[in-house]
Amino acid sequence: MTKSGLDMSDGRRRAVIEGVSPSVDNGRFAAKRILGDRVVVEADCFTDGHDSLACLLLWRREDEETWHESPMTPLGNDRWRGSFTAAALGRYRYTISAWVDHFLSWRHDFARRIEEEDLRIAAQVGAGLIEAAAKRARGKDRKSLNDWAARLRSVTDTAALKSCGLDANLGVLAGLYPDRRLASTHPVEFPLVVDRERARFSAWYEMFPRSASREPGRHGTFRDCEALLPDIAKMGFDVLYFPPIHPIGRVNRKGANNSLAAGPDDVGSPWAIGSTEGGHTALHPELGTLEDFRRLVAGAHAQGLELALDIAFQCAPDHPWVAAHPEWFRWRPDGTVQYAENPPKRYQDIFPFEFESDDWRGLWQELAGVVRFWAGEGVRIFRIDNPHTKPFPFWEWLIAELKRAYPDTIFLAEAFTRSKVMHRLAKLGFTQSYTYFAWRNSKHELIEYFTELTRGEGRDYFRPNAWPNTPDILNEYLQFGGRPAFIVRLVLAATLAASYGIYGPAFELLEATPHTPGSEDYLDSEKYQIRDWNRGAPQSLADVIARLNRARRDNPALQSDASLRFFPVDNDSLLCYAKSNADRENLVVVVVNLDPHHVHSGWVELDLEALGIDAHTTYQMHDLLSGARFLWSGPRNFVRIDPQRAPAHLFALRRKVRTEHNFDYFL
Amino acid sequence: MTKSGLDMSDGRRRAVIEGVSPSVDNGRFAAKRILGDRVVVEADCFTDGHDSLACLLLWRREDEETWHESPMTPLGNDRWRGSFTAAALGRYRYTISAWVDHFLSWRHDFARRIEEEDLRIAAQVGAGLIEAAAKRARGKDRKSLNDWAARLRSVTDTAALKSCGLDANLGVLAGLYPDRRLASTHPVEFPLVVDRERARFSAWYEMFPRSASREPGRHGTFRDCEALLPDIAKMGFDVLYFPPIHPIGRVNRKGANNSLAAGPDDVGSPWAIGSTEGGHTALHPELGTLEDFRRLVAGAHAQGLELALDIAFQCAPDHPWVAAHPEWFRWRPDGTVQYAENPPKRYQDIFPFEFESDDWRGLWQELAGVVRFWAGEGVRIFRIDNPHTKPFPFWEWLIAELKRAYPDTIFLAEAFTRSKVMHRLAKLGFTQSYTYFAWRNSKHELIEYFTELTRGEGRDYFRPNAWPNTPDILNEYLQFGGRPAFIVRLVLAATLAASYGIYGPAFELLEATPHTPGSEDYLDSEKYQIRDWNRGAPQSLADVIARLNRARRDNPALQSDASLRFFPVDNDSLLCYAKSNADRENLVVVVVNLDPHHVHSGWVELDLEALGIDAHTTYQMHDLLSGARFLWSGPRNFVRIDPQRAPAHLFALRRKVRTEHNFDYFL
Repeated sequence: MTKSGLDMSDGRRRAVIEGVSPSVDNGRFAAKRILGDRVVVEADCFTDGHDSLACLLLWRREDEETWHESPMTPLGNDRWRGSFTAAALGRYRYTISAWVDHFLSWRHDFARRIEEEDLRIAAQVGAGLIEAAAKRARGKDRKSLNDWAARLRSVTDTAALKSCGLDANLGVLAGLYPDRRLASTHPVEFPLVVDRERARFSAWYEMFPRSASREPGRHGTFRDCEALLPDIAKMGFDVLYFPPIHPIGRVNRKGANNSLAAGPDDVGSPWAIGSTEGGHTALHPELGTLEDFRRLVAGAHAQGLELALDIAFQCAPDHPWVAAHPEWFRWRPDGTVQYAENPPKRYQDIFPFEFESDDWRGLWQELAGVVRFWAGEGVRIFRIDNPHTKPFPFWEWLIAELKRAYPDTIFLAEAFTRSKVMHRLAKLGFTQSYTYFAWRNSKHELIEYFTELTRGEGRDYFRPNAWPNTPDILNEYLQFGGRPAFIVRLVLAATLAASYGIYGPAFELLEATPHTPGSEDYLDSEKYQIRDWNRGAPQSLADVIARLNRARRDNPALQSDASLRFFPVDNDSLLCYAKSNADRENLVVVVVNLDPHHVHSGWVELDLEALGIDAHTTYQMHDLLSGARFLWSGPRNFVRIDPQRAPAHLFALRRKVRTEHNFDYFL
Repeated sequence: MTKSGLDMSDGRRRAVIEGVSPSVDNGRFAAKRILGDRVVVEADCFTDGHDSLACLLLWRREDEETWHESPMTPLGNDRWRGSFTAAALGRYRYTISAWVDHFLSWRHDFARRIEEEDLRIAAQVGAGLIEAAAKRARGKDRKSLNDWAARLRSVTDTAALKSCGLDANLGVLAGLYPDRRLASTHPVEFPLVVDRERARFSAWYEMFPRSASREPGRHGTFRDCEALLPDIAKMGFDVLYFPPIHPIGRVNRKGANNSLAAGPDDVGSPWAIGSTEGGHTALHPELGTLEDFRRLVAGAHAQGLELALDIAFQCAPDHPWVAAHPEWFRWRPDGTVQYAENPPKRYQDIFPFEFESDDWRGLWQELAGVVRFWAGEGVRIFRIDNPHTKPFPFWEWLIAELKRAYPDTIFLAEAFTRSKVMHRLAKLGFTQSYTYFAWRNSKHELIEYFTELTRGEGRDYFRPNAWPNTPDILNEYLQFGGRPAFIVRLVLAATLAASYGIYGPAFELLEATPHTPGSEDYLDSEKYQIRDWNRGAPQSLADVIARLNRARRDNPALQSDASLRFFPVDNDSLLCYAKSNADRENLVVVVVNLDPHHVHSGWVELDLEALGIDAHTTYQMHDLLSGARFLWSGPRNFVRIDPQRAPAHLFALRRKVRTEHNFDYFL
């Protein structure tokens, strides 16, 4: 090392590698991909002067010791691309190696030489390079290379010499044994996390199991939930998510509608976890036994549903940990603990943890143990409650720990907070993230937000999960828009985002009454009381939901977000966008009337070139919600949408593949 | 360390720091600033939950061992800003430290408390925090803090308690002694290079000293150059740049107009360096002695001119190094060295170095010695010839070495090549860079290119130097546009870029004949022959140049590039842009007719708000080239430009500062 900090031993490493993508904070965090994905890596690679470069993509699973190598090819403008297949769940690393390749430079030069004497001298130079490659080769390749070199040294005819030097077989053979002694390797080993498909594509159904009873007034049980599984599966969901199912604290228990004084019959908030019956690894006795829980997990699985649990790291005042580990809480001089707040919300029934506790290591281990416990029970999807109120390093550690043992685990971050905080959580390991979707209702807002989500810097690590409602969020649009508003928000969530969810049965039953005017809380919220739902009520959207989820399963275009693209409509109440799968064979076009009260019409303008559609051929628009089929042609087509009839078109765009003799056939 | 690689000792460091700016490749390279600049550093800083954060900017000269600290203030949206003054030339480092500040969190919380009992408990908590601060304090601050704590513990009146806890003096005092044990510090110590002002603001005049003679046919000398200094200084330049002044090789010497056969009187290319008379540290005997050279350096200095030398790391075949260090060249089997090429140009009179030589360390040291030699002679500006044909690590090392000894050194990269290569050179240390300016002639091209240069990712490290011509570049626009074209290109170079240069006297004498039609080479180029220039010819632009350089010196707006902003004109031949100094007190607006052949007129539309101009007041436009003054008002004003009279307006925008009683006074 010289004084300047430069390692002079690197002085002859002439290749430069920069601008690697994907790169999340220069490799501080992992990019995310899905099992089976072709992982495409690009970088700017170049060298001084006019020599030729060779570039390799190096990649390995994190537990492998040696790199695999994939060739990279130049895209022009010094950009190179390589790829590998993510064939296993878990963590990978990748980086790039590049070197000035004297054999390639020589060939490039040799091809341009014309003068006879020049060519002969160059042939001698080439022979030397090939002999050097032969020394690096093994077996018969070594002999072959030496034969090529001998030919270059002996052939006298200029034309023969040239074709010998430029022979494709020689190029392939010598390319197997490059001189990599002076290769540059990018110093960052970029991390990558490979998740299973559900991390990218999932439809969530949230429900309170205590409201699952069919007998009004009786506390619902896991057995009651089991009975509901067929209906939930029929709607086409893949994830069934329960709020916390643990014993509920009795101290400072909340009453109905968040009242501070609970009566003896009040059931309290499931997020006020822990009582004498146990804490985060216990089950609320009224829901059932661990045996019942296991039956439910298995029953859901049999219906194609995966159970997701809520991880809320906080305690009711009577949680066993409060007495057993007082050092995990911040005590005030009067011997009390300040209750939790998430302004403007106050959780008088909840103690937060003191993560600056001297025993923070013990706390971390115990909390990780909670997730490990439920993972041991077969649960692999966790919705994490308010992760932004616990330290970032804690989550990075916990998620890494859990995914090392269970690489198929999915963590959904429920952080409704500032954008940079949400992004940080996604970077440090959360598999999916709740979004601002509930508060993006106008055309402009939706286009801007989903363009940012799919094209912005989070595209490699932030997987959005869109919810039209949650037990905490009944937005104004739903409160006032009636049935069309529910359908609009449902279609938007399910087609803008490959992962979405609803809180039911409030959603499908069009529950729209707020706690107070201007509030986003539900009146008689299930957070504080049991509700009796008439799941078979005629207004239920169960059928629309089923058609929508069916369309999502049938159309790969709807199973990822990167292809999302918005198109102009000359009416601000009409929103149009499309998604396609990787080879653009499957194309879905959505047109939504965002105004739940009025009929709107306008001209949609598709970018046919971007969609890979011949501008001069008719194509068929097959509405997967209504079943209707329309013939469109050219980029501009007219739509008219009556929200009372059907506020959205969900079109599968089918190209004409036959001749005029059988015009009706579209793919 | 846990298996996941996370250092659990960091688990309680809850503050997050990311998105630091400036940041060049995540701190791999230095951002650049000028002596005396206020260096503004920003970052995204936040923590979990709702606690308050404190952030510090840490900075030091690279040779200092401890950090200086500057407070950072929140800008909103989790962005923080701090700054320090670059008070010395050379290298600095900076990084950011942030922590959850419990005293600040407490005050924030205390301010919102209302209930009496609550407030009392909180006061006890606050007293504890203040006592802890007292333990960190010294001298009488310790006593003061303990007094505050005692007051908080004893006051009983609620209002008095509240005003005690929120007292501004207490806030300041406690803020001096924060608890930084759990502070997070960004792991990257970002480098910064501080250059002298000329690195940002410079006007270059290039000339061949061998053409400086006033007697036709006689080889010019340093003494002849001395005689020209007053005229060059009068034009207002600050840098006088000479092509190589070393002995010129005789082997393979080029003749006039790049011919391969030189006659006995041909002087050869100055870039074919080295002969029996010496190499890179010798002077061409016909130019004069080292004594003459020193006189010239001093004479230039006395006229406010600084001499810049050309560093061309290559050798004529008869350079002494070729015999002394054959290992520094790549020999072919026939005992020759392949001459240099920079396709499509061929330099038959030049050998390139073999930087992959086994003795590359010796080569590097010898080449650095060349620059060191001339630096020892007082030269501090070097124009580096074709740096992109030598290895990047070499330049990074050489520039760092030289700037450690001579931190006032300026290196101009003459790399006309692909963008990423040019950017890399700028990142690794070149102070200024030649640009594509010569090939950006239309309105669209100029707006796009200079927006990229001033707003793009190079803004912190790539300092453009714009040249309308060089000995290698006589562009088509100049070949066909006549005098107006020369003035247009001059005004554009000198006002779009704070650093610019011309190759004279070819430029000011409107030399416009190419070597062959379609070529950008000059006919009878000075690269290969001596030229006799009639410097006093009537067509000379010397006077326009002088006015332009005078305007540059008088107007700080023209001395940096970051403020450049283009404005619409409803005529594609008219280009309008403005620059301002940091406080927008000095404003320059340029309107250029890019069509050298026709009169054009149009409506200019200034963004008055961006310029800080009251939209309802008249302002004066004072043309610094013609001396004319115009009264404008509002954003839209009409211009009509006749290229034959004056193809550009260079307006100083003067705000009205007096009342209607003395309307003529503008600042």
